[in-house]
Amino acid sequence: MTYLRNAWYVAAWADELERGKLLARTILGDPIVFFRDGESIHALHDRCPHRFAPLSLGTFDGKAIECGYHGLKFGGSGACLENPHGPLVKALCVRTYPAVEAHRALWIWMGNPDRAKPETIPDFSFLTSVPDSAFNKGYIHGAGNYQLYIDNLLDLSHTDYLHKSSLGGGSMTRTSPKVSERPDGVVAVGWYAKNEVPMPFMVQTYPGQLDRVDSYIEVEWTAPSLIMLANGFTPAGQPITQGLTNKATHFLTPETPNSTHYFFAGIRDYQVDDVDFNRMILEQRTHTFAAEDEPMIAAQQARMGDADLWSLRPVLLNIDKAGVLVRRRVESMIAAESDPSNQNRDAKVPATSDIS
Amino acid sequence: MTYLRNAWYVAAWADELERGKLLARTILGDPIVFFRDGESIHALHDRCPHRFAPLSLGTFDGKAIECGYHGLKFGGSGACLENPHGPLVKALCVRTYPAVEAHRALWIWMGNPDRAKPETIPDFSFLTSVPDSAFNKGYIHGAGNYQLYIDNLLDLSHTDYLHKSSLGGGSMTRTSPKVSERPDGVVAVGWYAKNEVPMPFMVQTYPGQLDRVDSYIEVEWTAPSLIMLANGFTPAGQPITQGLTNKATHFLTPETPNSTHYFFAGIRDYQVDDVDFNRMILEQRTHTFAAEDEPMIAAQQARMGDADLWSLRPVLLNIDKAGVLVRRRVESMIAAESDPSNQNRDAKVPATSDIS
Amino acid sequence: MTYLRNAWYVAAWADELERGKLLARTILGDPIVFFRDGESIHALHDRCPHRFAPLSLGTFDGKAIECGYHGLKFGGSGACLENPHGPLVKALCVRTYPAVEAHRALWIWMGNPDRAKPETIPDFSFLTSVPDSAFNKGYIHGAGNYQLYIDNLLDLSHTDYLHKSSLGGGSMTRTSPKVSERPDGVVAVGWYAKNEVPMPFMVQTYPGQLDRVDSYIEVEWTAPSLIMLANGFTPAGQPITQGLTNKATHFLTPETPNSTHYFFAGIRDYQVDDVDFNRMILEQRTHTFAAEDEPMIAAQQARMGDADLWSLRPVLLNIDKAGVLVRRRVESMIAAESDPSNQNRDAKVPATSDIS
Repeated sequence: MTYLRNAWYVAAWADELERGKLLARTILGDPIVFFRDGESIHALHDRCPHRFAPLSLGTFDGKAIECGYHGLKFGGSGACLENPHGPLVKALCVRTYPAVEAHRALWIWMGNPDRAKPETIPDFSFLTSVPDSAFNKGYIHGAGNYQLYIDNLLDLSHTDYLHKSSLGGGSMTRTSPKVSERPDGVVAVGWYAKNEVPMPFMVQTYPGQLDRVDSYIEVEWTAPSLIMLANGFTPAGQPITQGLTNKATHFLTPETPNSTHYFFAGIRDYQVDDVDFNRMILEQRTHTFAAEDEPMIAAQQARMGDADLWSLRPVLLNIDKAGVLVRRRVESMIAAESDPSNQNRDAKVPATSDIS
Repeated sequence: MTYLRNAWYVAAWADELERGKLLARTILGDPIVFFRDGESIHALHDRCPHRFAPLSLGTFDGKAIECGYHGLKFGGSGACLENPHGPLVKALCVRTYPAVEAHRALWIWMGNPDRAKPETIPDFSFLTSVPDSAFNKGYIHGAGNYQLYIDNLLDLSHTDYLHKSSLGGGSMTRTSPKVSERPDGVVAVGWYAKNEVPMPFMVQTYPGQLDRVDSYIEVEWTAPSLIMLANGFTPAGQPITQGLTNKATHFLTPETPNSTHYFFAGIRDYQVDDVDFNRMILEQRTHTFAAEDEPMIAAQQARMGDADLWSLRPVLLNIDKAGVLVRRRVESMIAAESDPSNQNRDAKVPATSDIS
Repeated sequence: MTYLRNAWYVAAWADELERGKLLARTILGDPIVFFRDGESIHALHDRCPHRFAPLSLGTFDGKAIECGYHGLKFGGSGACLENPHGPLVKALCVRTYPAVEAHRALWIWMGNPDRAKPETIPDFSFLTSVPDSAFNKGYIHGAGNYQLYIDNLLDLSHTDYLHKSSLGGGSMTRTSPKVSERPDGVVAVGWYAKNEVPMPFMVQTYPGQLDRVDSYIEVEWTAPSLIMLANGFTPAGQPITQGLTNKATHFLTPETPNSTHYFFAGIRDYQVDDVDFNRMILEQRTHTFAAEDEPMIAAQQARMGDADLWSLRPVLLNIDKAGVLVRRRVESMIAAESDPSNQNRDAKVPATSDIS
C-alpha cells in the first residue's frame, strides 16, 4: 500500500511518551522509536543499522539509545555517538523522522524531512483550552485501513443505525449534509437540523426538558487523516449560540495497510469542572468507538480482504459524497508525491473542479 | 481452488436457523447470511453492496435485514427495500442463493440459480422416518479439504486402524469392497462380510451373545459431497434382514480450500425409544468423528499443505478405488462446468468408461 | 530457503528419543519421525506415501511403525513391511535419512545418504567425559533463522550488553578476538584477556577473592551449524592452566527458514559432584539463552522479516568478521552442493583466500 508520506501524522498522545523512556510504534509500516531530549521529541527508525536489532529493546540514558545487542549508541540526530567496537563510520546512522509535540499529541512527518514544517500542523489548540476535567481522550488499535475510519466520520448518517442508543433517532438521516471544500484543502461537512428528535445523549446531558432540538454537527477533514468534529444543540427555537457544545478530534494514523492507530479526544463547554461527568463521557465515547464503530469497521475490512475499495465496485450513495471526495484527494496527493518532478514541492491540493 | 458450483450443498442443520434470527456461514468461500421468512429459506451474500459491512451484523425484522452500518434494508429477493438516504437504484441489491429446507437440513445451491431444482436434492428422507430418540446428529468444523473427508468415508478399511476400539477387528480389511457406479451418477461401495469377527460396537449394542457375525456396510456418494452409509449385522448364519441396522448421512461442505463443514447424522431400527441409549450413541459417534477422524485428516492436510493431492503422487492401493473414482468424477464435472459451452446445461456425469 | 543438506545436524538430545517411542520433529523443513531399533537410530520421512498421514501418529512395535490411518507398516529401512490391502509394491516406501547417536545427541544427515559418514561427525565426546553432575543441557525452540544464532555465538562482544548481569563488564568488548581458519574448515575465534574486570559469573563461581582476571574464550564453528565454546579464567597473573574451565556446545538446527532448534550443553571441571550447583548453572544458562538471547534474536528476525541479511545492507563492524566469514563459507558450500557436477563429491570447503 502507498501512503501519503509528506504529511503530519499523530504518532501518540504526548503523555504516552514519558521522559527518560522509549516508546516503540509502527507508523505507515515503519517501526519507529521515540524519546524526549529536553524540549525535543526524537523519532528514529527502530532498527539498528548493524544487525537490525530493535533499538527500542536497548537502554536510554536521557540523551541517546544504547542498542541492547552490541552497545552502539545513537542520539536524536540518528548519528552513532559511540561504537565500542571501532570507528564511527558514516554509515552507522539511523533514519530520523521530524517529530514535534503539539495540541497534547506527538506528531511525526514520514516524508522528506526538508519539507516538514511544524507550523503546518493544523490548529487543534482547542484541546488545551479547557481544564482537564472538560477534556477526555483515548486510543483504539483498529483492525481496518485508516480510510475506513475516515469514511465513517465523514458520513455520520451511520449514527442512526450503529449508535442507536446514544446517537440515534433518525435526525442525521433526515438532515442532508452540506459538503464544501475550502481553499486550504480542508473538506467540511455540516449537518444543520431544525426542530428535530433529540439524540439520546442530548436528553441525557441537557439540564432540563428537551422535546425537539435545533442542532449542528460540523466535521472538518485535513489531509490525510485528521478530523475535527464540533456539535451543539439547543431546545428547538432557541438561539444555537446558547446551546451546549462539544468539540472533538479523531486522528487516524495508518499502522499497516489493514490496521490503524485511532486517537480520539474531546472537550465541552458545560459541566467543565465535573470530574465524574467527564469520566462518564469518556466511558460513553470509548464504548461508542471501541465497541460499536471498531467491530463494524473490522468486519468491513474482513469482508474486503486485501482488495482496494474501488475494485469491489461499491454502490455509492449521497451520504458518501464527502468520503469519496476525500479519497480522491488523497489519491491525487499520493500520485503527485510519487511524481518525480514534484519531489521537492508541496503536493498540490486538487481543486474542486478536479474531483468528479 | 475451484469448486463444483452447480450442486446442492448442506449449509446447516435446519434447527440451527431459528425463526427471526440470522445465521452467518461461509460456503465455498462465499460469506452467506441465512434467514427464514414464512416457509421460505433465504440465503444472501453476507456483504452490503454499499460499503461491504456484513449484513449478518444487522437487525432482522422477520422479513428483511437492515444493515447495521447505514440502514439499507434487503429482503429475501436480495433487492433493497429501503434506502434511507436516497432512491432505490437498481445496483442496490445483493446476490441471493437458492436455499431450501429438506431432510432436517438447509440446502444451498452455489451456482447458476436457474438450474437449482430442489427436486434434485437426493432423498435423505429416512432421517425423518424415526422418532427423535432414534435420531442423532452433529457438526464438526474440519481443518481439511472436503475431499479428504470423502476419501475417508469411501475407504472404510481405516476403521480397523483409526477406530480400533469401536469399529476395529480387521473385518473391513479382510472384506474386499464392491465398487459400482449407478446410472444416476451415484458411486456405491459395499462391504459384505460372512462369519467375521464382530466390531466392538456390535458386541456392545447386540442384545445377546455375539461370537461371529454376518454384516454389510453400504456407502453411497452423490456428487459432490453427500454420503449415505447403511449397515447391518446378525449373528453369523442368521438372515441379515433380521439384524440390527443403522443408516447415516455425512454431508461435507467446503468452507474454504482447507476447511470443511462436516454434518453427520444417523438413525437406527433398534432401541428406538431409548433416549439414554440415543445419547450414548451420539457421544460415541461424535468421539469417533471429532477425536479420531478429524485429527488424522487435519494432520494429513497439514502434511499436504496447499499442494494438490495428485501433485504429491500418492501411492494408490486397492482400497482407494472408490475415492479415486469420485475425485475423477468431481474433476470432470468441474471441468464441464467451467466449459463456456456448458453454462446452461447440467453437468454431464461422466460414464464409467471415461474413468481410468 | 536453501539449506546445506550434505551435513550432519543435531536432531534431538539422545534422551529425548525413548526406546519404544516415536519422536516427530521438522528438520530443514522436512517432517521426520525417529525411533530406536536395537542400537540403531532410524529417521523416516514422517508422511505415509499412501495418503500422507504423519507416521508419527501411528503405533510403534519396537521394530516398525504401523500407519494410524490405514495400517501400512514401515521398518527402519523405509520399506513397507506389511500392506494389509494388497501387494508390497516397490513404490510403497518412505524416504529415510541416515541418523546416529553420538555425544549425547541424535544426528541426522539431510542430503545424499551415500555421503553420510558418521565418522565425520565432529568430536564432541567431551560432553560424555564428566559425571552427570558436571553436565547440563537444554533446548530452545527459537523464532529466528539459525544463522542469527550462529552470528550471536561468533561475536561474543554482545555479552557486555545483552548479558550484563552474568557475562558483562566490558572485557569482551575491550578484547579483540583472533579469527582463524583451520585446514579442516573449522573457523575459530578466540578472546584472550589479561588483567581484566571479571565477569559476574566468574566472581560468583570462583572459590575466593577475584579482583582482576586472566581469561580465554574460544569458539569453534564447524559447518554448517555446530559450535564449541571453551572458556577458562584465573586471578590475574596466575597460570591459566590452573583456572576454572567450562566447555560448551551450541547446536543450531534449522527447523524452517525462520525457526531453529537450539540445543545447548556444557561441562565444567570444578564442583563436578555438586548436583545443586549443577542445577543452578543450568538455570542460569537457560535464562541467558532463553530469556536474553532468544527475545533479541526473535526481534531481530521480526525486523528483518523474510529479507535476506545482505539485501538489507547491514553496516558490518570488526566484531562481525567471524560471522561474515562463516556465512560466506556456508553460501559457498550450498552453491557447490547445488552445482550438478558436484552431486557425488564432498562440498569443497572454500580456502581462506576465497573469502573477502
